[in-house]
Amino acid sequence: MVRNYSVRTDLALEERERFEADNVEVQGVVLEEEYDEERQIRVTRVEIRTENGAKAMGKPVGTYLTFETPDLALPDEDIHQDISKRLGGYVRELIRRNTGRSEKDLSVLVVGLGNRSVTPDALGPYVADHLNVTRHVIKEYGKYAMGRDHVNMVSAVVPGVMGQTGMESTEIVRGIVSETHPDLVIAVDALAARSSRRLNRTVQIADTGIHPGSGVGNHRSGLTEKTLGVPVIGIGVPTVVDAATIVNDTMENFIAALESSDSLKGVGNVLRSYSAGEKYEFVKELIAPHLNGMYVTPKDVDEMIHQISHTLAEALNMVFAGEA
Amino acid sequence: MVRNYSVRTDLALEERERFEADNVEVQGVVLEEEYDEERQIRVTRVEIRTENGAKAMGKPVGTYLTFETPDLALPDEDIHQDISKRLGGYVRELIRRNTGRSEKDLSVLVVGLGNRSVTPDALGPYVADHLNVTRHVIKEYGKYAMGRDHVNMVSAVVPGVMGQTGMESTEIVRGIVSETHPDLVIAVDALAARSSRRLNRTVQIADTGIHPGSGVGNHRSGLTEKTLGVPVIGIGVPTVVDAATIVNDTMENFIAALESSDSLKGVGNVLRSYSAGEKYEFVKELIAPHLNGMYVTPKDVDEMIHQISHTLAEALNMVFAGEA
Amino acid sequence: MVRNYSVRTDLALEERERFEADNVEVQGVVLEEEYDEERQIRVTRVEIRTENGAKAMGKPVGTYLTFETPDLALPDEDIHQDISKRLGGYVRELIRRNTGRSEKDLSVLVVGLGNRSVTPDALGPYVADHLNVTRHVIKEYGKYAMGRDHVNMVSAVVPGVMGQTGMESTEIVRGIVSETHPDLVIAVDALAARSSRRLNRTVQIADTGIHPGSGVGNHRSGLTEKTLGVPVIGIGVPTVVDAATIVNDTMENFIAALESSDSLKGVGNVLRSYSAGEKYEFVKELIAPHLNGMYVTPKDVDEMIHQISHTLAEALNMVFAGEA
Amino acid sequence: MVRNYSVRTDLALEERERFEADNVEVQGVVLEEEYDEERQIRVTRVEIRTENGAKAMGKPVGTYLTFETPDLALPDEDIHQDISKRLGGYVRELIRRNTGRSEKDLSVLVVGLGNRSVTPDALGPYVADHLNVTRHVIKEYGKYAMGRDHVNMVSAVVPGVMGQTGMESTEIVRGIVSETHPDLVIAVDALAARSSRRLNRTVQIADTGIHPGSGVGNHRSGLTEKTLGVPVIGIGVPTVVDAATIVNDTMENFIAALESSDSLKGVGNVLRSYSAGEKYEFVKELIAPHLNGMYVTPKDVDEMIHQISHTLAEALNMVFAGEA
Repeated sequence: MVRNYSVRTDLALEERERFEADNVEVQGVVLEEEYDEERQIRVTRVEIRTENGAKAMGKPVGTYLTFETPDLALPDEDIHQDISKRLGGYVRELIRRNTGRSEKDLSVLVVGLGNRSVTPDALGPYVADHLNVTRHVIKEYGKYAMGRDHVNMVSAVVPGVMGQTGMESTEIVRGIVSETHPDLVIAVDALAARSSRRLNRTVQIADTGIHPGSGVGNHRSGLTEKTLGVPVIGIGVPTVVDAATIVNDTMENFIAALESSDSLKGVGNVLRSYSAGEKYEFVKELIAPHLNGMYVTPKDVDEMIHQISHTLAEALNMVFAGEA
Repeated sequence: MVRNYSVRTDLALEERERFEADNVEVQGVVLEEEYDEERQIRVTRVEIRTENGAKAMGKPVGTYLTFETPDLALPDEDIHQDISKRLGGYVRELIRRNTGRSEKDLSVLVVGLGNRSVTPDALGPYVADHLNVTRHVIKEYGKYAMGRDHVNMVSAVVPGVMGQTGMESTEIVRGIVSETHPDLVIAVDALAARSSRRLNRTVQIADTGIHPGSGVGNHRSGLTEKTLGVPVIGIGVPTVVDAATIVNDTMENFIAALESSDSLKGVGNVLRSYSAGEKYEFVKELIAPHLNGMYVTPKDVDEMIHQISHTLAEALNMVFAGEA
Repeated sequence: MVRNYSVRTDLALEERERFEADNVEVQGVVLEEEYDEERQIRVTRVEIRTENGAKAMGKPVGTYLTFETPDLALPDEDIHQDISKRLGGYVRELIRRNTGRSEKDLSVLVVGLGNRSVTPDALGPYVADHLNVTRHVIKEYGKYAMGRDHVNMVSAVVPGVMGQTGMESTEIVRGIVSETHPDLVIAVDALAARSSRRLNRTVQIADTGIHPGSGVGNHRSGLTEKTLGVPVIGIGVPTVVDAATIVNDTMENFIAALESSDSLKGVGNVLRSYSAGEKYEFVKELIAPHLNGMYVTPKDVDEMIHQISHTLAEALNMVFAGEA
Repeated sequence: MVRNYSVRTDLALEERERFEADNVEVQGVVLEEEYDEERQIRVTRVEIRTENGAKAMGKPVGTYLTFETPDLALPDEDIHQDISKRLGGYVRELIRRNTGRSEKDLSVLVVGLGNRSVTPDALGPYVADHLNVTRHVIKEYGKYAMGRDHVNMVSAVVPGVMGQTGMESTEIVRGIVSETHPDLVIAVDALAARSSRRLNRTVQIADTGIHPGSGVGNHRSGLTEKTLGVPVIGIGVPTVVDAATIVNDTMENFIAALESSDSLKGVGNVLRSYSAGEKYEFVKELIAPHLNGMYVTPKDVDEMIHQISHTLAEALNMVFAGEA
């Protein structure tokens, strides 16, 4: 099966789809889907419940919510208000489940991962820019100073990328966590998707944090409860597809096309008679080495990143103000 | 020949290579190449001399200099000083040839094309940022105020992109030219290359200006002597490859691989027996529609754009100060 | 009268206040004021009707609306929606009066004056960034493509500052106007106020355009109906105060304090006995020469500029979509 | 003495000047000055040696080097290379003295304090942007990978400002220090000067770190050996003057002018007869409350910040590569 060569995806949903294509049930993995037809919003919940499931999926045990809508990149304030509220609700659900407490009493550190100066990787920093941080005010004047009943102690940091800091984000965040003692970390990152169809329209919220090798910038070590000592909720938005992935997809499509072609049936017959290994020989040659470190991104990525970072920041601001 | 499906390239050099592969002489097109082995600098000069040559190449009559070196993105100041000086020399050559005058007495408008907020398209605006403009000083105090013997009257503009201005760059620049009367326009733009191998290392200098459909942002109309009324020198640096191009390349490689494969000889035999048109049917299906408007770019594009824009601005500053 | 040494202000309102202090009626200048107590919004209308009035005020004949509210820099979306709508109404009023036509059929060029990379001067560019430009869509697909009944043909340009372009903004805009033929120009600029009390809370809308010497960047030539050939509405927001102004204000306060002081009555008596000219000798010495080119600006100027530029862009977007 | 009302300065040099004016020797404080006439470079060394000296100066015991030259903001690469080398030499001197070791074997964390989005406060972040960080490379491949004999383990962080992070810079940096164990911290910050004459031309290098209340952004807590556990070298460049300072200066000048005036001798006589306390009553009234949170900065602050941040980053890069 050619799909075995699959290039990495940061989306549990896409990982799950690999199996779907072959109609395979994955043990220890539960999939639920809701679709709001009027709003065109699809929410998929992938729960990886066992270590076996985790192994099969290549992702740790936990809950992965995927929120998809073509409206995500639409510049309409009312729609975004609605999306922010829904996203906020899912974040709150994962907070409650993972801390065993209401989000009301928690202090939260939001981490904006990524590189502010590379457009498709700037999502995390931009979300941090638009957050309402409160920790310094509450520490100085108490909760009453905020003039609202529900107010979380919120702090935010943009750790930068290793090429600029010489440090891994995990080191920086671990230091800050051990100094400021938040109850929870929420890490926001731009992701690489497998399919360009996901760009502009997908948000993944997971209670498993951020893992090594994920994100546009490919983190070397993870931000997880294990490395940070507090629960970590990861929020990711696919903004790029690895160039190698596009090439790989094309190959798969081409081989499938050959196999089912009427006019080139002969080719299909020959191909079908060869093993996956033999086919792999071709694919390997075609993924040109100079595609390493290259990604595919839409031309309007700047607008999209600004739009979506506002929506995500608003979702978090709502959760922390008790409005979502 | 599969190469007929070729996706557009802004580089005359790449256009010429299409023919090379088939060992075809193109009438009316002269190709010269120099290679400086020590510095690893290759300069290719494509001269399209006749309308027939222009038709074959899909590019207007004129001179296209392509400067290639792996050092272009290297952060070494001495090397860049040297590269700036060489690039400046080629710019001066094209200025002299196209204006019939020494560059000494000319007033020049530099146009930084592209979108400042999308990293791979920001090359033109960044070059404009680093230029030494002199027009306002000379108009106020005379040439002597500059304290140098050779000093051009230099102005610069960043017209923005149509999605932000509602106007074509050509309209904006034509208005400014008719108002400020420069002798020459130099337009700097980020280009789309056919091959990811060109990214980070190539500069094209041409005396034919900027043409409709070229550039990362795909200009709808051109900046040429015909539209502006003064000679236009275009300086372009490939910073992206269209995603569709990458897919197309893969297809070509795959078909070539199949045709020459030992282990899958059968497939190759079948494929060889089909016409170009039949093969094209496959390719068309594989260029997924959601790849439209997507491009491939290196992850370190931000650093590269900053580095190269400095080098280009320095080259122009040298020409205008009589130092190149 | 010490007030004669007054440093320049871009606000007609502040110019008028000079006279008010002395209870002087200025012939040919009509002043009207409305105050909405609930919303804390003060709108002042200065109409300079005669050349004599223009001379007295040091500003051309025309209408100057000043909109003041402490809420302008408040980060509250509902309030800003309301402010945008009101500002839009005033813009529409001046458009109708100056073009003699409904704003419905007009094509408009919005000019974002100022320097994008100096925070207090970036207001104009930021407003241009947030505008909904439509000209290119309407030219390609017609008005019906916009899906609304009322839609203006809107274009926008950020001409840059003379130190970066070598050209005056007037030259650039005049070129674009003569090429694209808008019916109206709206120029947005950051202003220098006389008093730091105006910063963060004032918008001036005038039908006299932008004048030489005004703006944070001190334009050398104006954007007016006379220089551009079409009516020009200027929208200005004070974001800085000249450092020399602050010093001058202090002097005036000090002299006034001396003159009315009980404890230092003797000094006051002596000062009162001297002429304005003699007093001026002191003032001159105190305005240190190294204060030239310096301005006073609030520390949170970045947030303020972002906030207000959104509100202004929204006001213009409402006018051009028939919603204000 | 009116000078008692003096507004805060971050420069030890300016603090020392207060006393100079009165020809006072400050016990426990040693002042040395060198002047390179050809290069127009003045280096002043203020050594505060005793707690009494510290009390008198309002600054902690330590060494404060002040480097002044009008060339600092000049856009000339050769001059800046020279300035970088000199500044690097002083940094190295303080490193050696405070660590008791050669800078060769040290691991260093550079902290870029300030707010990236407010131009005059962006110096620290910009310096961090231009640093050659090496820690991640050395940790992965060893020192030999760098291809040079002398190479420090360098990391860098831009902690952001409290209004954006909800945390004090000290908390963030202390966390990172306790996680990554550098031998030394170098903190770079934009400073407030007392006099606008210092802007654009002054660098202070001190081995006492950064102190509460200093910097353009007014840090609430310090970055010092006491708070971080490792020696801290502070590098500061004055980029603003508090607006209240400008006003205060004017007052002092005015009173001095009155006191020495021939034409207004009478006023001077009266003023001279009053106590400092009485004079202070005037001053207090004149420092308008809305000047709080306002600063004075040159109009070309953007260019200046870019220029100087490059020079400082280059100085540090030279030290860390053994070239200064």
